[in-house]
Amino acid sequence: MVETWVPGAAGSSYDVDHLPYGEASAPDRDDWWIAVRVGDLALDVAAVVDHAMLSPLLRTARMHLLLRSGPRLWAQLRTELVRLLTDPACRPEVEPHLRPVEEIELELPFAVADYVDFYASEHHASRVGALFRPDGDPLPPAWKHLPIGYHGRAGTVVASGTPVRRPTGQRGPGDVGPTRRLDLEAELGFVVGVGAEEPVGCEALHRHVFGVVGVNDWSARDLQAWETRPLGPFLGKSFATSISGWITPLAALDAAWVEGPDQDPPPPAYLCPETPRGLDVDVEVVLNGRVLSRPSYASMYWSPAQMLAHMTSNGATLRTGDLFASGTISGPRDDQRGCLLELTDGEGPWLADGDEVVLRYTAPSTGGGRLALGEVAGTVLPAR
Amino acid sequence: MVETWVPGAAGSSYDVDHLPYGEASAPDRDDWWIAVRVGDLALDVAAVVDHAMLSPLLRTARMHLLLRSGPRLWAQLRTELVRLLTDPACRPEVEPHLRPVEEIELELPFAVADYVDFYASEHHASRVGALFRPDGDPLPPAWKHLPIGYHGRAGTVVASGTPVRRPTGQRGPGDVGPTRRLDLEAELGFVVGVGAEEPVGCEALHRHVFGVVGVNDWSARDLQAWETRPLGPFLGKSFATSISGWITPLAALDAAWVEGPDQDPPPPAYLCPETPRGLDVDVEVVLNGRVLSRPSYASMYWSPAQMLAHMTSNGATLRTGDLFASGTISGPRDDQRGCLLELTDGEGPWLADGDEVVLRYTAPSTGGGRLALGEVAGTVLPAR
Repeated sequence: MVETWVPGAAGSSYDVDHLPYGEASAPDRDDWWIAVRVGDLALDVAAVVDHAMLSPLLRTARMHLLLRSGPRLWAQLRTELVRLLTDPACRPEVEPHLRPVEEIELELPFAVADYVDFYASEHHASRVGALFRPDGDPLPPAWKHLPIGYHGRAGTVVASGTPVRRPTGQRGPGDVGPTRRLDLEAELGFVVGVGAEEPVGCEALHRHVFGVVGVNDWSARDLQAWETRPLGPFLGKSFATSISGWITPLAALDAAWVEGPDQDPPPPAYLCPETPRGLDVDVEVVLNGRVLSRPSYASMYWSPAQMLAHMTSNGATLRTGDLFASGTISGPRDDQRGCLLELTDGEGPWLADGDEVVLRYTAPSTGGGRLALGEVAGTVLPAR
Repeated sequence: MVETWVPGAAGSSYDVDHLPYGEASAPDRDDWWIAVRVGDLALDVAAVVDHAMLSPLLRTARMHLLLRSGPRLWAQLRTELVRLLTDPACRPEVEPHLRPVEEIELELPFAVADYVDFYASEHHASRVGALFRPDGDPLPPAWKHLPIGYHGRAGTVVASGTPVRRPTGQRGPGDVGPTRRLDLEAELGFVVGVGAEEPVGCEALHRHVFGVVGVNDWSARDLQAWETRPLGPFLGKSFATSISGWITPLAALDAAWVEGPDQDPPPPAYLCPETPRGLDVDVEVVLNGRVLSRPSYASMYWSPAQMLAHMTSNGATLRTGDLFASGTISGPRDDQRGCLLELTDGEGPWLADGDEVVLRYTAPSTGGGRLALGEVAGTVLPAR
């Protein structure tokens, strides 16, 4: 890898083999802009369009246009950004448009169209199933045949850093009040760039998915348990879902693919069990500064390509800005449980007012180091 | 009611006490525009803005701006349209902007933000519960305590007239193919105009909901049954949801409110059982020109105000363009069943390729007649 001239960036988690995108604003500017992170600095992409062979569409502020422009332009842009940030001759033109990340605010990085949440970890589904259905099979009958998922509320997906108010609701018959069982769920989210009018095959992940975000799918377990039959989660989830402000391009994860667990029974042809399926993305679940667990995406049963193929297999169209998430990332070990429900065997303690949850994600980078995906942070506000 | 000068409109289902809105296009025009139906004619609202005391925002084509402008402007617009269409002095200016509805195409009338589908008919939920859980209580434990609902796929909500392709999917373990149990569901949908950052009380329906549409929630029963545990419907529903091209303003239904069934146990305070709760909206389910059933919204257990209050009670925000639907409208009688699952006791026959489903809706109008909501039509295409 050619070395960057950006001070402090070489060898960091945000070296030029990463280059995540966000929508930024700052107190001293009226507009917002597409920012690219390098080291501890954020580059204003629009400001360097004229100094580089970059598409004029990047002069616009909205990520939406970048998302829908497709893999060829994504790759061109990435190549050009690496050139700008490594060629010393470009430094005089580019450096004035870098500013410290502490000086910017990251907005929700894209307008979420539809939001689908899957349930792709066998370890999570089995532990939750055993808690909720102690006398039955912990996995529902279809679990190993298809990636089970449901639609969540797109309008309440919020950017990392947005405080999350404790929801109020029915905790049981005649019992209305603030949730007593507020939980976090550490997940990985996939951001759809290019939409589709036809089913998307499981080989087409890179043609449609632009990148990944961290996701905290906040959950009110008491509300969820009471309302969930027979149509699934609703108000127990719909109050807030936090995602990271930086989108890591899928291209930055080229070195992160790993085999993934065997799938038995083999899924049907449209879910072709392509190799590799797992992603070596390690997660840290941090509560008030203390690491609670370290799950890894590497052990997830269903791959993002399989989730995408399944989601569109019935003819459902796909749109720019669709977001699909993995469901709780949990591994086989006790210290790899991705939610409090699992970590406490359903007993709690649950999240308290004022608690701060931070999810951190790392993955091998193509340059040989380890990149850090954008973190997902949120503090619990008391009920209204 | 003052009589309209529009030929053929007085006393029709589209008299000036109705005035539904749609987004129209036509082969001889490049743009689309907000149309208001009167009789068998459609008025181009933007074209008469300058002849009337109408907000300049109506010059724009998109319904979104009208939706978010709120109840005061909705009422002003309605008053002004009635004046234009009843005052003979306005006729010379207005008549050139009326054209036969057959000459226009209705688009999806608004951009759907989040789509929530409820399950508000006790008769539907009981019959379906008895079919799926013959040995248990037909109603799930929470059913009478809260309006059960789930999020559907906003991106596949389509306008009436759009053909619906038979979905393919898993009908059971290892069994992939076109659904063998394609069904319709006759529902009523509520279109959110004004969003909210705080919970919306059940008295606030008219401050947030702009109007109603007919909804056909197409369902693949075999796909749905196999995938649905534990997270609810997903691909069995997400391939298509059809809505009418005309939105009937809530104001046009002022004479349609009726008592509705008793609620026992009384729901909690935030779901105040306000009177009246039912809507005297009669539905006709028509398959290939034959009326299959005639359910009525009057017997629905949960009211639209209760659904809206519940949906936001946990702090979930509301956006302009959110759509929430009632779930299948079914009454106590056999000829009031709103889907084939109920009409055939789960045995079929189901929808065949080429079948045309039309849902028609009527309600008492404030002028003393009966208005016809926009119909919802769709023809089944063979699987891909």
